[in-house]
Amino acid sequence: MNRSIIRYILGSVWKIEGALLLLPCLTAVLYREPAGVYYLLTAVLCAALGTALTRRKPESTVFYLKEGCAATALSWISLSLFGCLPFYLSGEIPSFTDALFETISGFTTTGASILVDIEALSHCALLWRSFLVWIGGMGVLVFLLAVIPLSGGSNINLMRAESPGSSVGKLVPKMRHTARLLYGIYIGLTLVQIVLLLAGGMPLFDSLCAAFSTAGTGGFGIKNDSFTSYSLYIQWVVTIFMILFGVNFNAFYFLLLRQFRKALRMEEVRWYFLIILGSTAFIACNIRSMCASTLDAVSQSAFQVASIITTTGFATADFDLWPQASRAILVLLMFVGACAGSTGGGIKVSRLIILFRAIKNELSSYIHPKLIRQVKMDDKPVDREIVRATSVYFVTFLALFSVSVLALTLEGKDLVTVFTAVATTINNVGPGLEMVGPTQNFSHFSDFSKYVMMFDMLAGRLELFPLLLLLHPTVWKQLLRRGPKARGR
Amino acid sequence: MNRSIIRYILGSVWKIEGALLLLPCLTAVLYREPAGVYYLLTAVLCAALGTALTRRKPESTVFYLKEGCAATALSWISLSLFGCLPFYLSGEIPSFTDALFETISGFTTTGASILVDIEALSHCALLWRSFLVWIGGMGVLVFLLAVIPLSGGSNINLMRAESPGSSVGKLVPKMRHTARLLYGIYIGLTLVQIVLLLAGGMPLFDSLCAAFSTAGTGGFGIKNDSFTSYSLYIQWVVTIFMILFGVNFNAFYFLLLRQFRKALRMEEVRWYFLIILGSTAFIACNIRSMCASTLDAVSQSAFQVASIITTTGFATADFDLWPQASRAILVLLMFVGACAGSTGGGIKVSRLIILFRAIKNELSSYIHPKLIRQVKMDDKPVDREIVRATSVYFVTFLALFSVSVLALTLEGKDLVTVFTAVATTINNVGPGLEMVGPTQNFSHFSDFSKYVMMFDMLAGRLELFPLLLLLHPTVWKQLLRRGPKARGR
Repeated sequence: MNRSIIRYILGSVWKIEGALLLLPCLTAVLYREPAGVYYLLTAVLCAALGTALTRRKPESTVFYLKEGCAATALSWISLSLFGCLPFYLSGEIPSFTDALFETISGFTTTGASILVDIEALSHCALLWRSFLVWIGGMGVLVFLLAVIPLSGGSNINLMRAESPGSSVGKLVPKMRHTARLLYGIYIGLTLVQIVLLLAGGMPLFDSLCAAFSTAGTGGFGIKNDSFTSYSLYIQWVVTIFMILFGVNFNAFYFLLLRQFRKALRMEEVRWYFLIILGSTAFIACNIRSMCASTLDAVSQSAFQVASIITTTGFATADFDLWPQASRAILVLLMFVGACAGSTGGGIKVSRLIILFRAIKNELSSYIHPKLIRQVKMDDKPVDREIVRATSVYFVTFLALFSVSVLALTLEGKDLVTVFTAVATTINNVGPGLEMVGPTQNFSHFSDFSKYVMMFDMLAGRLELFPLLLLLHPTVWKQLLRRGPKARGR
Repeated sequence: MNRSIIRYILGSVWKIEGALLLLPCLTAVLYREPAGVYYLLTAVLCAALGTALTRRKPESTVFYLKEGCAATALSWISLSLFGCLPFYLSGEIPSFTDALFETISGFTTTGASILVDIEALSHCALLWRSFLVWIGGMGVLVFLLAVIPLSGGSNINLMRAESPGSSVGKLVPKMRHTARLLYGIYIGLTLVQIVLLLAGGMPLFDSLCAAFSTAGTGGFGIKNDSFTSYSLYIQWVVTIFMILFGVNFNAFYFLLLRQFRKALRMEEVRWYFLIILGSTAFIACNIRSMCASTLDAVSQSAFQVASIITTTGFATADFDLWPQASRAILVLLMFVGACAGSTGGGIKVSRLIILFRAIKNELSSYIHPKLIRQVKMDDKPVDREIVRATSVYFVTFLALFSVSVLALTLEGKDLVTVFTAVATTINNVGPGLEMVGPTQNFSHFSDFSKYVMMFDMLAGRLELFPLLLLLHPTVWKQLLRRGPKARGR
């Protein structure tokens, strides 16, 4: 195991976090909030520790998938630990477990909150919450790749560990350029949303927080009622941008290159829009009698469907009160999730396409046993290894899901609460049903349950294996092995 | 498609059903119940139609997997249709949908009932219900193979379509002998249970029905309170026999051959017992405060765990009132199910072992990417094709599960009821939670929901693909193609 590169990466992301913390510091200065000092302290701490770790260049910059996974998992855990310090030190979130839960929830773009009264938070805390979502959305290691030159080919192992989807799409041959392109599109779209929100009369601070949370598909609102009291215009802007940030970013790249046909032909994106349209139409009919008008029903339905399938988690209605069929569809959409290569969570539309085609092939093989069929996507055959890995991913996902549900039932909460609490955290959505419904929060869980859900949020965001690998004894042995001349692998 | 062999098989199983119907006829004579005439009528109808179809020998006895699947699915559907006639014609179950639901529930060894007052049924109806379970447990086509000489090698395609598990274990080279051995063990174990129940003071009729229902892991009781009012001795006899009928029958075959070590070494059986022990211990502690004594807690826990993991569905306690963790474990056990090659349902322990080992291999591949690992079971490598098919099975299972849950939510019942109703029918268990708890029944569902659950019960019992294949247009085209000289395949 190349430990020096892991050390170097950790130090680098800590320095980045130190820099990012200056944004809430600035907010505190503008709003004259004393809590800002804790953000500054944490920034200094991150910068100091980061500098200490990056003082020596790594002995070798070559790294493999396991180093990529370990570096990613450790980065996300340590960034969360640092990130929660200001909440805890300032006393705005008095329990350390709660502060960590809130930070991981933001950073993994989940948006599940332990806060009972969000509006009581200081401006710097609100901005830091939303900014965490924005950073977590595209990924801090992708950011690292965009700004710091690491060695050539093996970078893909870092990106593969952090980026969602069954295969990593390199937009351009150089990873560094790919990372920059992704962040370019991300920043661009976020800016457009901010402008559109400002145009709707939303204050600048609210627009920034809302856009950060939408872009990362995190769903941290700054109002206790999420988006219920905003105007219809603002709700529709948010609806559309939630959907956009759930699109595979490759599609935006094709649009940038004016390859419109290529963008339109992406099967994943087409299915993603079809699922959104179908679900919105069904739920709109289903809740029509509960709404003031058809427009109202469609708006509410579209907002909630977009919010759940992109795993954002904003709400304009208490969908926990909706008919059972609508509630069930929303729970299913949590698992579907957004496109691969987007900022959304869940299992991802492309994985489900691959799995459904594998079922179809299996059925056909009963009829024509000798015909060898391959799963196809975008008219290209999908590598058998990817089909296999996708199935294993699905099985692993459900295994972790089942174990987490069992762990959470220990405190005796009803099964719908427990089931949807795990579903909403592992899929990085935010709200669930019953006691974790959109008007509720996660403060009532025991510390044990909260740590289980923190693990689920991280596992969901990092797509299981990088985090599960940290539980593997071999990895620990290799990470902690003594002596300066540890064998390469 | 070799349609003549399908016709011949269908005719044969109808004749068998005609013969089996004589048992309730005899019961009716003994108890002087007029309802018996409808059993006789149905028996004559089955025999007449069966004879008509088997008048001509099939042109060719060679058949492939698709014929095996089609014959199996059509057999099970037609047998259920005939089997429900006596219930319906005698007026004991006035609704045809309900009569069909009850029959399919018995035949697929589910044991979910639409009856509000079971004890109001005539003796012949009660016996027919339990006898359906017994036949369905080992499978009617396996029975056919045991008694009727079909052509050689292609018989395995019939057995493969009907028998549970990821691979069909031929005990002996000849399928016919394997089928006879299986039925021999099955009859032997059933007889031992009847004797033990009689020894405990249970009346003969009750013992017969109880043993039939236990052997098939179906769980149709003949009392409204299932097994709650029977003595502790009888409850333990049933507990042990439920567990035995959930064991892979290969283990019994090894025991018959006095290859004790081979039987003890079967990993699936060992895990099966470990899961039962662990769950029983946990639940016993969890419900201790609700029970009169520790023995009572262990007895209740063991009975319910055995009943659910073997997918039998008897009850000695209303586990719907148990703590959430115990309820959640029972729901998970529904999905686990019994061993492959037993009469139980569910996903099967061996499939889960294969899937968990696939996860472990995947994790290891992140650490040692170049090492090629194979999933092993019983110290032998499992064919990659079986690992792949197992994953696809799991995915298909969950797809059907999700669609069924969505369909059932349409009538507006709470999510726990709907979730466990589908779980309990697709896994062939019987009771669920809330409105389908052990003291409840399935009569309150709409006809639409009942047909969805009937499909799930059949799909679960036949392990998905034979039934799903019937939905494939190609199969229909081939089945209905006109002309005497249809092309072979």
